Amino acid sequence: MDLYSGYINKLIEELAGLPGIGAKSAQRLAFHIINLPKERVERFANTMLEAKRNVRYCKCCFTLTDQEICPICLNEKRDRKTIMVVENTRDLTAYEKTGKFDGVYHVLHGAISPMLGIGPNDIKLKELMQRLQEDVEEVIIATNSSLEGETTAMYISKLIKPTGVKVTRIASGVPVGGDLEYIDEVTLLRALEGRVEL
Amino acid sequence: MDLYSGYINKLIEELAGLPGIGAKSAQRLAFHIINLPKERVERFANTMLEAKRNVRYCKCCFTLTDQEICPICLNEKRDRKTIMVVENTRDLTAYEKTGKFDGVYHVLHGAISPMLGIGPNDIKLKELMQRLQEDVEEVIIATNSSLEGETTAMYISKLIKPTGVKVTRIASGVPVGGDLEYIDEVTLLRALEGRVEL
Repeated sequence: MDLYSGYINKLIEELAGLPGIGAKSAQRLAFHIINLPKERVERFANTMLEAKRNVRYCKCCFTLTDQEICPICLNEKRDRKTIMVVENTRDLTAYEKTGKFDGVYHVLHGAISPMLGIGPNDIKLKELMQRLQEDVEEVIIATNSSLEGETTAMYISKLIKPTGVKVTRIASGVPVGGDLEYIDEVTLLRALEGRVEL
Repeated sequence: MDLYSGYINKLIEELAGLPGIGAKSAQRLAFHIINLPKERVERFANTMLEAKRNVRYCKCCFTLTDQEICPICLNEKRDRKTIMVVENTRDLTAYEKTGKFDGVYHVLHGAISPMLGIGPNDIKLKELMQRLQEDVEEVIIATNSSLEGETTAMYISKLIKPTGVKVTRIASGVPVGGDLEYIDEVTLLRALEGRVEL
């Protein structure tokens, strides 16, 4: 005998398919949703459908947006000659929150990962190369500091260098407020290699 | 300027309203959902709506079910004279998984909590008392071993005792496989008080 009604089981299954949601959490969330007022559940389901329906890639930088061209690419004050390359829209947002970068972005939607079978053609790399045909002075590679992110950074830099456009990589090192004692050796080594004169 | 499209923000907001989902997780889940194929998002939204539409309280024990009367209450083999009182359907399932309890259940949908303003009338207590008018021999109180669960257990036992029905409480003690060293003092004390002769 199934322990829950089929409807509950299906909902638990859907929830457990989300990243970072285990079996127990999925159960808890399912019961929470079932206990919400009907209007709230309808609003939730609608929000999900509306987001899926209306959110698309910006035709220029490929970030997720509900317009043809995203507000950043449309903003006249942004410096179109400096493109920061990030893995996804969340990373773009992280830099955007600093409020200090006035260039534009290019969202790859992934990173090269031979392990996961993700090659250069599976991310928005061709699209980046196309953008370089316009007047671009610098490409700042801000992919993650992971194996995949580093691989992607190396690949992109080799691809761009022959075009004569300047390619830079954001710095690796000890995070601000970080305690040396708890930082891994690779990071410490990177911080040493990347030391700057005071 | 909003960092994300309004559609994404709304979805993040809905997700952050779920229990145990923080702001960062909500963001991650929202982007995961937006990146799912359209059919998957539609299936997810539908599953949610279907569950909400079809799942209701069992008229007898108040567990969540998609029928008038839940399969446990309908089961002829279950002993209707023994009612186990639990706080919610998940707790019912936990006991059901042991496969060793052949009585029926009563789901309170909460516990008395003066702190949260939840009184005896806010849980399915009146409904439990009504069930005692039929031929019931024992009520096993299996509310949680928390302050609220204990308060509820005490309250119910005082309510039922005058009716002459036997009231019991599941045992508190050291969990099986538990290492005494890591068990809190209150539990150790309970285990001592509840010692049984070998």
